[in-house]
Amino acid sequence: MRKITVILLFIGLFYTGLASRDRLVLRLPEIEGYQIVKCDFHSHTVFSDGHVWPDFRVGEAWADGLDALAISDHIEYQPHEKDLPTNHNRSFELAKGAADAVGITLIKAAEITRDMPPGHLNALFLTDVDKLDTENWRDAIKAAYDQGAFIFWNHPGWTGQQLDGISRWYDEHDELLADGMLHGIEVVNSDEYYPRVHQWCIEKNLTMLGNSDIHSTTDMDYNHITGNHRPMTWVLATSRETNDIKEALFARRTIVYWRDMLIGEKQYLEPLFFGAIRLETPTIVRAKRQHVQLANLSDLLFELELVSAPEGVSAPQSFTLQPGHATRIRLGFDKDKAFSSIKLNYVVNNLQIAPEEGLPVSLTIAVD
Amino acid sequence: MRKITVILLFIGLFYTGLASRDRLVLRLPEIEGYQIVKCDFHSHTVFSDGHVWPDFRVGEAWADGLDALAISDHIEYQPHEKDLPTNHNRSFELAKGAADAVGITLIKAAEITRDMPPGHLNALFLTDVDKLDTENWRDAIKAAYDQGAFIFWNHPGWTGQQLDGISRWYDEHDELLADGMLHGIEVVNSDEYYPRVHQWCIEKNLTMLGNSDIHSTTDMDYNHITGNHRPMTWVLATSRETNDIKEALFARRTIVYWRDMLIGEKQYLEPLFFGAIRLETPTIVRAKRQHVQLANLSDLLFELELVSAPEGVSAPQSFTLQPGHATRIRLGFDKDKAFSSIKLNYVVNNLQIAPEEGLPVSLTIAVD
Amino acid sequence: MRKITVILLFIGLFYTGLASRDRLVLRLPEIEGYQIVKCDFHSHTVFSDGHVWPDFRVGEAWADGLDALAISDHIEYQPHEKDLPTNHNRSFELAKGAADAVGITLIKAAEITRDMPPGHLNALFLTDVDKLDTENWRDAIKAAYDQGAFIFWNHPGWTGQQLDGISRWYDEHDELLADGMLHGIEVVNSDEYYPRVHQWCIEKNLTMLGNSDIHSTTDMDYNHITGNHRPMTWVLATSRETNDIKEALFARRTIVYWRDMLIGEKQYLEPLFFGAIRLETPTIVRAKRQHVQLANLSDLLFELELVSAPEGVSAPQSFTLQPGHATRIRLGFDKDKAFSSIKLNYVVNNLQIAPEEGLPVSLTIAVD
Amino acid sequence: MRKITVILLFIGLFYTGLASRDRLVLRLPEIEGYQIVKCDFHSHTVFSDGHVWPDFRVGEAWADGLDALAISDHIEYQPHEKDLPTNHNRSFELAKGAADAVGITLIKAAEITRDMPPGHLNALFLTDVDKLDTENWRDAIKAAYDQGAFIFWNHPGWTGQQLDGISRWYDEHDELLADGMLHGIEVVNSDEYYPRVHQWCIEKNLTMLGNSDIHSTTDMDYNHITGNHRPMTWVLATSRETNDIKEALFARRTIVYWRDMLIGEKQYLEPLFFGAIRLETPTIVRAKRQHVQLANLSDLLFELELVSAPEGVSAPQSFTLQPGHATRIRLGFDKDKAFSSIKLNYVVNNLQIAPEEGLPVSLTIAVD
Repeated sequence: MRKITVILLFIGLFYTGLASRDRLVLRLPEIEGYQIVKCDFHSHTVFSDGHVWPDFRVGEAWADGLDALAISDHIEYQPHEKDLPTNHNRSFELAKGAADAVGITLIKAAEITRDMPPGHLNALFLTDVDKLDTENWRDAIKAAYDQGAFIFWNHPGWTGQQLDGISRWYDEHDELLADGMLHGIEVVNSDEYYPRVHQWCIEKNLTMLGNSDIHSTTDMDYNHITGNHRPMTWVLATSRETNDIKEALFARRTIVYWRDMLIGEKQYLEPLFFGAIRLETPTIVRAKRQHVQLANLSDLLFELELVSAPEGVSAPQSFTLQPGHATRIRLGFDKDKAFSSIKLNYVVNNLQIAPEEGLPVSLTIAVD
Repeated sequence: MRKITVILLFIGLFYTGLASRDRLVLRLPEIEGYQIVKCDFHSHTVFSDGHVWPDFRVGEAWADGLDALAISDHIEYQPHEKDLPTNHNRSFELAKGAADAVGITLIKAAEITRDMPPGHLNALFLTDVDKLDTENWRDAIKAAYDQGAFIFWNHPGWTGQQLDGISRWYDEHDELLADGMLHGIEVVNSDEYYPRVHQWCIEKNLTMLGNSDIHSTTDMDYNHITGNHRPMTWVLATSRETNDIKEALFARRTIVYWRDMLIGEKQYLEPLFFGAIRLETPTIVRAKRQHVQLANLSDLLFELELVSAPEGVSAPQSFTLQPGHATRIRLGFDKDKAFSSIKLNYVVNNLQIAPEEGLPVSLTIAVD
Repeated sequence: MRKITVILLFIGLFYTGLASRDRLVLRLPEIEGYQIVKCDFHSHTVFSDGHVWPDFRVGEAWADGLDALAISDHIEYQPHEKDLPTNHNRSFELAKGAADAVGITLIKAAEITRDMPPGHLNALFLTDVDKLDTENWRDAIKAAYDQGAFIFWNHPGWTGQQLDGISRWYDEHDELLADGMLHGIEVVNSDEYYPRVHQWCIEKNLTMLGNSDIHSTTDMDYNHITGNHRPMTWVLATSRETNDIKEALFARRTIVYWRDMLIGEKQYLEPLFFGAIRLETPTIVRAKRQHVQLANLSDLLFELELVSAPEGVSAPQSFTLQPGHATRIRLGFDKDKAFSSIKLNYVVNNLQIAPEEGLPVSLTIAVD
Repeated sequence: MRKITVILLFIGLFYTGLASRDRLVLRLPEIEGYQIVKCDFHSHTVFSDGHVWPDFRVGEAWADGLDALAISDHIEYQPHEKDLPTNHNRSFELAKGAADAVGITLIKAAEITRDMPPGHLNALFLTDVDKLDTENWRDAIKAAYDQGAFIFWNHPGWTGQQLDGISRWYDEHDELLADGMLHGIEVVNSDEYYPRVHQWCIEKNLTMLGNSDIHSTTDMDYNHITGNHRPMTWVLATSRETNDIKEALFARRTIVYWRDMLIGEKQYLEPLFFGAIRLETPTIVRAKRQHVQLANLSDLLFELELVSAPEGVSAPQSFTLQPGHATRIRLGFDKDKAFSSIKLNYVVNNLQIAPEEGLPVSLTIAVD
């Protein structure tokens, strides 16, 4: 008798959280040679201090449009351990079937959770998390390193460890870097962006990461009410398979996607902008039409600010290109000047190639 | 060293899921003599087949505007029992502190999960859930009864137990009713409304309930994407304390709130409608102004359909009163007739006093 | 002194209604050999019974994503003639400058507004509207014909002329058709779709049109509150220039875009569907993964309903592909059957190739 | 034959723009002794440089929730005069019937449109606008004054007349003030707020006004896309009749409603705040529950910032009370201190009683 009940309930379970809604698909231009693999490398479940069962994270990731996910439960902090005995590999095991079913690449991971320094670090691509459960933090990181892990420092400016919210670099981080045991840092964690960390990544050749560190649900913290998407690390890889993601992370090919902001290298942000934009008035007739029309065919938003226009030409100080919309900007011409072509220099402020440094872009328009 | 870490994380934990957003407050008219206590008496956690830890259900309930909540994990079905050993009272214990902190009345409950008949039944106001873990279903219900429980039958038309989706009444339910062990039925469960059950409640004097039966999260299943609120049972009680809710449930003072629909007795739906509506043109000047303006000051929606108008008067066949909006309806008058006052008879179709039977309302307008 | 004031005000005027917001850009797949030119061939201004000045229609059309617009003021009905003396060419003249400035193709047009039969007819591509202001309706249509106009019948099922809302074909329409003076009909007008007219267009080789017939503003009637776009006729033309639109209209290359519905010929709707959809699981592993994932990269929505699946395979009866989202559909396999490939036959119900006849599509999936 | 056509079209016309949607009803607390009459005293039609016919302004005002409207076409600027011969009283005449039909109080008005100084001024409650069409601006204002008009200065910081956007007070304004010919100023015009003007109104005892100055449509400029409501002047009057609005304007009983901001005197803003808010935890148990819960039952939003808390108590630096939502704020207590009651002093920053000066409010909570 009970058997039948169980089977019927199981069908219900299978659908819940997976089939209840659709998956977001961002319309993005291509970056030649790579797939843009959408990843979140930092999330929690009830096996540490998260609020949900591991397979829920998979359905949520699928709906949010992720291609890959790391569940990175704390090793040293398990508030539910009275009910859920410690097993550091368990959250991965419980989520793997759901991940395979929906085509999400699930990465075995953990959060080494220590006082600052060195603070909290995530290790990805682990084979056995239990080996990281050590007394000394150096042993834990060494254990991850020995498994070939990609290791990154989490939220260096988190007020839980830096009361003033300022990210600080310690000798211990120099030590890890020298030993090849620190490969990246979170430039973005949940609703925080750390400009200092951004600069460190550029100077020290570290991989930039942006993650949700989700404990409750992304609907509660992001999608519902605010309408913001969860933070993501876009990995530029040759495929969405584990090994290719790993290769790309060590090769520092990432873009951090946070609110309307994209953080990354010029070489990757440039094709995103120019692939998204269509100049709909390549030639303007000076006498008749002094507007330039730009369409944004992507699901990204671009905020432009004027750097310089040719002498005798005025152009708007700033404007925004909304996703799926076209915008008209008005040019003014000095009566006494002749132009065959004009080049407008803007920066795209929400595409950041360094702290407070937007992507420079030039728009060239022929004048008839 | 670890101690500090734990304290800091704990602060983070406390806020997650509780402080991350605001609580919905429905603007409703009063029903004299009672508070409208917003309840959901059917929800699940990881302790049966739900996807979240028990305290998450409390933060979610608070945000959704509930005053009272029952966590009703399955007794007979625990897919996570390999990780979480059976303890039927545990989900209540783990949620109680959070409920007290935010002022949610948490009701100790369980779902007796059996084949049909008698199907699944929820027991509320339990003192010890473990006593309901019996081989025979009659013993389980008896154990609940002995604890003074309010017992209701869940989702009688669920396709998991009735492949054709039709609710069926069995001899076993007659037996329970005769023994005073069945007090209500779910007229609404998640995205299903059962008209047959609605009729049974009227005929057999049973309490009408509407619950979410939430397994994932209400953001995923209701608030996000669709914009629908979770199903609720509104209990008309003298306070939101446990005992007063219990008294009201046994006294059958409930309204089921599902999508735009309210299901309940005429005596309770009538003051909701007339308390929400303001007739802004109590007198119309026939020669000049033939429009009647109605404002809806509540957060409810009302769909009206014409039953009858006086001879010689035409009125719109149907119209909708949106929350926080006013609407104008146009009347037509027979030239040869004189009127000092007209009475328009409508039914409010989404306020159901019986299956497919809306609340009858009359609008009386003076004519000058 | 006044001169300065005027100049400053003029700048304000220039921007109002044009620069105050962005232009919607629909992301659509290509239909080989053609541009999809988005048109509305039926609109009104204060020069007949519309509520806005002619140049407002242009800014509105630009914001709504149109490429071409016809202002078609009534010839026989001018409620504002006491203030605005009759000049049938005037609304075109007053809108032309704004249209040129923003790149909208403005088509000179008028609505011949007569009792039924023949009812109301729009004439496009006129050179002098005044010539259509005649006592006899046959003379008016003849005058349009002599100017090489494309002539179509407006809203044949409008309750203003057919109290029961049923479209009726009269001898007068046979006469016009025989004389080559009737080239198309509105299958859609504002919030009405006429299935009978759809059938007539197929049988009598007439061009299908869908227009807004806007009198107030499209924000008031469509964009705001309901969120529906204005009805449009998509013309498949070699460019968006007047002559190419005209050629395409006479050649019957149109698709009507109304709410979520597209109405047109199979040869045009098919590339829209298959160009928008990406099958993300071209091969499924029967043992492991029985879900097929489909992404919709366009801004259109598709509602699919099952026609047939191979024997031994079950597939969902219906599902919806939301714009910018992916969906998973679950297949079931008979245990005893082997498959190397399966072909699922669906109809896309909101892509109508005839009244109540959706576009048939087949999805072929390899099975491993 | 034509007659029938005209009648049928007329029915269509009557409905367009009036019945096509509902009227917004703001849920607001009462201000004792007054009605909150929602007004916009500055709008344009095609009779000056607006884009719509006068009666459209009425339907729009009704939908936006206004109780009273002034159409204030420019006297000196009529870009459409080639088509619409000058008649300064005409836009009022054309809108009056529609206003009576929907219960909008229509106020006869005009905009005296001159270079700075004195700039543009609106005159309300006129009897004959033609008398204001004079060569000299002093004569125009005198003509308004002689009709008993309420006269206010429009957009003193408009960049069309002050290139740097800074509001400047001229000798001419002193002259008008001395002569009793200047009664108010626009503190808000469309998307601009002028802090200097706010200060002038306080110092010089002038009435504060906030108006849309709408030329296109409020859907285009406010409701659609941005979601902002149109700027309004709330007049605290004994009824919504013309004379009572006039009395209240001369008595300076106004509140300006702009975006989320309310601008006015402390005596009027205070009852709005305290009437909207419900303290849901009047007593907190220090040992158990340190959260204070506040519900906002109105359709307004309130942004609070901490001024001071008792020594030994910590309270959040800032928080927002969303319309129709409750919020919890967390208090911290010094272990060594005892409290029987605590008083928290906040300012409501978006309720401005002077430039950059929010309404001070105190919340008193008993401690058990």
